[in-house]
Amino acid sequence: MNDSKMSAASFRALYDRLRGQDLWGPDDRRGALNHITPQRVIAAAGEVRAGRTVTLAAPLARSGPDNPEPGARHMKRLPAEPSDVPGVSFAADQITMSVHGDVDSHIDALCHVSYGGTLYNGVPAGAVTSQGAAELSIEDARDGIVGRGVLLDIPRLRGVPWLEPGEHVTAADLAAAEQAQHVAVGPGDLLFVRVGHRRRRGELGPWEVARSRAGLHPDAAEYLAERQVAALGCDSNSDTAPSVVDGVAFPMHVLAINALGLHLLDYLQFDELVPACETAARWSFLSVIAPLRLPGGTGSPVNPIAIL
Amino acid sequence: MNDSKMSAASFRALYDRLRGQDLWGPDDRRGALNHITPQRVIAAAGEVRAGRTVTLAAPLARSGPDNPEPGARHMKRLPAEPSDVPGVSFAADQITMSVHGDVDSHIDALCHVSYGGTLYNGVPAGAVTSQGAAELSIEDARDGIVGRGVLLDIPRLRGVPWLEPGEHVTAADLAAAEQAQHVAVGPGDLLFVRVGHRRRRGELGPWEVARSRAGLHPDAAEYLAERQVAALGCDSNSDTAPSVVDGVAFPMHVLAINALGLHLLDYLQFDELVPACETAARWSFLSVIAPLRLPGGTGSPVNPIAIL
Amino acid sequence: MNDSKMSAASFRALYDRLRGQDLWGPDDRRGALNHITPQRVIAAAGEVRAGRTVTLAAPLARSGPDNPEPGARHMKRLPAEPSDVPGVSFAADQITMSVHGDVDSHIDALCHVSYGGTLYNGVPAGAVTSQGAAELSIEDARDGIVGRGVLLDIPRLRGVPWLEPGEHVTAADLAAAEQAQHVAVGPGDLLFVRVGHRRRRGELGPWEVARSRAGLHPDAAEYLAERQVAALGCDSNSDTAPSVVDGVAFPMHVLAINALGLHLLDYLQFDELVPACETAARWSFLSVIAPLRLPGGTGSPVNPIAIL
Amino acid sequence: MNDSKMSAASFRALYDRLRGQDLWGPDDRRGALNHITPQRVIAAAGEVRAGRTVTLAAPLARSGPDNPEPGARHMKRLPAEPSDVPGVSFAADQITMSVHGDVDSHIDALCHVSYGGTLYNGVPAGAVTSQGAAELSIEDARDGIVGRGVLLDIPRLRGVPWLEPGEHVTAADLAAAEQAQHVAVGPGDLLFVRVGHRRRRGELGPWEVARSRAGLHPDAAEYLAERQVAALGCDSNSDTAPSVVDGVAFPMHVLAINALGLHLLDYLQFDELVPACETAARWSFLSVIAPLRLPGGTGSPVNPIAIL
Repeated sequence: MNDSKMSAASFRALYDRLRGQDLWGPDDRRGALNHITPQRVIAAAGEVRAGRTVTLAAPLARSGPDNPEPGARHMKRLPAEPSDVPGVSFAADQITMSVHGDVDSHIDALCHVSYGGTLYNGVPAGAVTSQGAAELSIEDARDGIVGRGVLLDIPRLRGVPWLEPGEHVTAADLAAAEQAQHVAVGPGDLLFVRVGHRRRRGELGPWEVARSRAGLHPDAAEYLAERQVAALGCDSNSDTAPSVVDGVAFPMHVLAINALGLHLLDYLQFDELVPACETAARWSFLSVIAPLRLPGGTGSPVNPIAIL
Repeated sequence: MNDSKMSAASFRALYDRLRGQDLWGPDDRRGALNHITPQRVIAAAGEVRAGRTVTLAAPLARSGPDNPEPGARHMKRLPAEPSDVPGVSFAADQITMSVHGDVDSHIDALCHVSYGGTLYNGVPAGAVTSQGAAELSIEDARDGIVGRGVLLDIPRLRGVPWLEPGEHVTAADLAAAEQAQHVAVGPGDLLFVRVGHRRRRGELGPWEVARSRAGLHPDAAEYLAERQVAALGCDSNSDTAPSVVDGVAFPMHVLAINALGLHLLDYLQFDELVPACETAARWSFLSVIAPLRLPGGTGSPVNPIAIL
Repeated sequence: MNDSKMSAASFRALYDRLRGQDLWGPDDRRGALNHITPQRVIAAAGEVRAGRTVTLAAPLARSGPDNPEPGARHMKRLPAEPSDVPGVSFAADQITMSVHGDVDSHIDALCHVSYGGTLYNGVPAGAVTSQGAAELSIEDARDGIVGRGVLLDIPRLRGVPWLEPGEHVTAADLAAAEQAQHVAVGPGDLLFVRVGHRRRRGELGPWEVARSRAGLHPDAAEYLAERQVAALGCDSNSDTAPSVVDGVAFPMHVLAINALGLHLLDYLQFDELVPACETAARWSFLSVIAPLRLPGGTGSPVNPIAIL
Repeated sequence: MNDSKMSAASFRALYDRLRGQDLWGPDDRRGALNHITPQRVIAAAGEVRAGRTVTLAAPLARSGPDNPEPGARHMKRLPAEPSDVPGVSFAADQITMSVHGDVDSHIDALCHVSYGGTLYNGVPAGAVTSQGAAELSIEDARDGIVGRGVLLDIPRLRGVPWLEPGEHVTAADLAAAEQAQHVAVGPGDLLFVRVGHRRRRGELGPWEVARSRAGLHPDAAEYLAERQVAALGCDSNSDTAPSVVDGVAFPMHVLAINALGLHLLDYLQFDELVPACETAARWSFLSVIAPLRLPGGTGSPVNPIAIL
C-alpha cells in the first residue's frame, strides 16, 4: 500500500487547490450545499419510482472497542407504573449521545474541522467556544439536505464482501463504480460510498476503528469537487486509518469539510439500501437528511432516508 | 367553552369505536403507518414542484416554564485548542435531551401511551421496562415516515394570530380549513395542524403549557380515522389543557396513539412553512420524518422536512 | 443600603492587598488548605463530644427559578423486573449534575474563578480548557478538607428568621456573631456562615437567586484572611446579588477563591446543624468535606458532614 | 478452588440465618448503621492521632473493559473566554455518572439488591420504580457514615502483591489478618478489605472484571454479622466472579446488603492508606463516608476519607 501514500507537500497543494476555488465568496457558510438548487431538488423527486423508503442509519450502538463513550437511553416513566395524571399513563425516556463517535450514524457540521487555524472558508477556529459554534453550526442545514442520492458500492466493484481496514477508495475506484453500476454522479448529488464497514462489523464484530479503518483516499477529494457533490456519506467515516498523509490525521475530513465545505455523514449503514437498489436495478434515489436543530452544534445524530 | 366538554362515558365509547376498527389484525405494530403505500409515496413525491425545503422543527430550547428539564449541548473538543491528532483539530460536542418535553420538537412512538393497562393494539403496558420498549418502540418507524404532508392553519381560518390556550380544534374546524385552503386530507397523508402555539410563544414568551394549551378536540379523532391519516403533527402537542374529558388527561394522545396507532409529532413549528405554502399557493407537499434509531425508544427528537 | 457599596478602586486595592500576601510561594496550588495542619486536625477531632453526625447538604433539587438546569437521576435497572443475572436483581441509576448551580450544594475548586486573566496564584485562565483544569482542579482537595468547623448564625444575631436577598454579612457581623455565640474563629477553621437562605426558600419557595441573594460583604474577606480560615461555606453562595461592587459581579468569589485560595462551599443547609449546635450549646465541631474525585473538575457536588 | 464452592442450599440456609436475626424490627431502614452509636463515634474520633487525611476513592475512570459506560465531565464555561458577567469569569462543568459501575468508587444503598422479591428487611422490590427508591434510598445515609475504620490487607497477609481474579477472602482470612495486623474488628466498625484489585489494575491494566474478580467468600458474611460491622468497603466490589454459589450471581451483595443491611462500598482504593497505616503502625482510623444527597437514589459516587 506504499503507493497510496501522499506526501505532506502534495496534500497541502491539493488542499490549496481545492480551497482556492472559492466558489461562493468569503461570506459563504453553506459550502457545497450551494450545489443543491430548486431544479435539482425537483429532479431528485423524480427518482421516486417504487415508493419504497429505507433508513441509512444504524441503531444506537452499545459500548465496544469502536464506542468507548456510548450513547444512552434511560427511562423517565414507565406506563405500567402508577401515573401522575388521570386516566392515562406514559412511557418516556431521555437520551445522551456524543455526536462524533466511531459507530453511531451522524452528520458533521462545517465547523467540525479546523486546519491551519481556520474552519471552512477562513472562519477562525475561535468561532467555536464552550458555548458552541457561533458560525458554521449544524443549524446551517436546518432545512434538511435533500437531493438525488447515489450509492457507489466499492466491495461490489471489487468482488469482495468488504474493504479491509486500511484499504482505500480512490477517485478511479469511484469512476469505475459509476461505470459498473451504470450511474453518473453529478452536480448537487448526495454521494454515498459503501466500503463494507458495517457488514464487516456485523460478521466479525467491532474493532478499534480509530486505529484501522477503510475509507476514501485523499485523491477522491478532487473527484468530489469536479462532480460538484453536495454531501458525502460513508459506512465508515470517509477517512482511512492509519492516514496515508504524513502528519495529517484525517485528510478527507480536512479536504471535504474544511476545503470543499462538504457535510460528511459518518458511519451510515447500507445493508437495506443495497438490496433495495438491486431490486430496483438503479443506484440513485431521493435522499433526505434531517439534522436535529441544535444551535451551535458541531453536528447531529441523524437518520438519512432513501426513497426509491 | 362548556359545550366543548366530553363526558367520560362518551370518551370511552369513542375510544372503543376507534379501537374496535382493528384494521390490521392483532399482530400489527405499525398502526396508521399502514396507510402509507408505495403508490402514495410515489404520488407524494409529485408534490415537489418548487424544489424548496423547509424545517418543521424548532431549535433546541432553553430552560423556561415550558421546559423545566431542558436539553443540553456540551462541548467535548474545541478546535482552537491543541489537538491530540496531527495536523488537524476538531470541534465536537454531546447532547442530552428528554424526548417528550413541552417545547422541543419530537415524535411519539406507539408505546408512548398506555390506556386501561395496554398500549396500542392491546400490547401490555409491561412491554416497556427500565430497559426500554420491547414492542412499539420508535424503531418501528426507522425507515422514515414519508408521504404527502398537508398543513391546516386554524388561526388563518379564524382570522386570529393564534388560538388561545384552552381553545380547541374540532373535526368541523379541520373540515372548514380544508375548504378554505382548497385542500382535501386523504388516505396516507401526514396531517399538520397549526394552532399558533409557536407564534404566541415567540411574541408573548413561554408559559406553563402543562396547564394551558391549545390543541385538538377529541372529536377530531374520528376525522383522523375517516380520512385515514398516517401521522399527525401540531405546533402544540395535539392535546388541549386542561382536558375537556373528565378523568382523562390527554384524550387526543389516547385516541390518536393508543386507539388509532397514529404517531404524533409534538411542538413542531410552521413559521417558515406557512409563508412557503402561501408563496406556492398550495398547502400540500412531500414530507419526510426521520426519527433517530433508538432501540427501545419511546420517541425521538426530530426535524421533519417539508419539500414543496 | 448605599453605605454598603464598595467602589471598583477600593475593591481592586483590597484584592491586591489580599493577593499580595503570597503566603505559600508561586508554586502553591492548595491555597488556604495550607492553614490545615496535622495538629489542627488532631485538635478538631477533639470537638467530637456528642457522637452525633449531621449533613450540611440539601437534597438534589427539582427545576425552579433558582435551578434552570436541574440535575437528574434516572433509573438503569429496577429490582422488580426480570434480572440478567441469576438469583438476584438490582436497582441501579445514573446521575447528571451541573456542578455550579444555584441550589444544589457544591464546592468550588480554586480554578473556578478568573480575575484579570488569572486563576488563583497567577495561574493563567487558559489552564482550563475543554478537557478540564490542568491546574487547580478539585483533585487538589482529594484527601478531603478536614478541620474544626464553626457555624456563625447571622439571622440569630439579628433576631430575624433570615436575611433578605440583597442584605450583607460584614466583617463586623462575623465578629459580633462570634461574641454572641461564644466561639472564636481561628487558623485552619472551616467557617460556615448562615444567612437563612434555605429557611427562606423552604418557607417562601424558590426565587431567581441569580438576581437577588443575601451573602457576605467584600469587607469580610479581610476577616477571613486575618483569621486564616481554611474554607468557607454558606447556605447562599457567599456573594450577595446584586453586587455591591460596580463592575465586579461576584466580589467574594474573586476575593475568597482567587485572592485567598479559599475553597467555597455554596448552597449548603444548616437546618439540622443549628438545633444540633443549640442542643450541644456549642458552635464548633469536627467537619469533613469530601469532594468527588473528578480529574480536571472545577468543583464537585458535596455532602459536608459535621460531627459534634 | 472447588473447595470454595457453596451449594445453593447452603447459601439459602446462610441467608435465612443472617436475615432471621432481625435485630431492629420490621420498620428498620438503617440496617447495620444501627451499630453506630454516639459512643462509638466519640471513640472513633480518638483514632485521630497523626492528623493526616487520606482519600479512599479512585479518580473518575476512562472507558475500558471494566468501564463500558464511563462517567464524564464536560465543560460548561471556560475562564479564558469572554464572560457574561462583569469583571470576572468562571470555569464550570457538569458530570454524568452511572452509580454502580465496575471501576468508579461508590456506595450501594440498601435498596440496591433484591433477593426473593424483597429488598432489605422485607421491603418489596416494587418500592423501586422509574422514579427511584421510595424506601431504602441512599438518603437514609445522608448524615454520613462515621466510625472507626479498620483496613484488613489480605495480599499483605498472603505475601502477594494482589489476589488473582477468582480468589476469595474467607472469614478465616479476615481473622488471620486481624491477628497479623494487631487489630480487632468490633461493633460499629467500618471494615475495609483490600484484595489488591487496584494495584493489579494499575500494574497490568484493566480487565473485564464482570467476569473475573477477587472478593469475599460468602462465609465471610457470618464474620461481618458476628463482629457487628456497620459498613463494608473493598477495592473490588466485595463479590468474587465467577460466583462460588450456583445460581446466585452476587452472593456477598445478597448477604451483606439484603440480609444484614450493610452498605457496601465498591471499588475503593487503598494505595495511599496502606503506606499511611504502615507509617502510623496502626490499621484503624476515623473514617467518614459522605454520600451525595440523591433522593430516591440507589447509591452514590463517594470519596470516603480516612483520618489517622
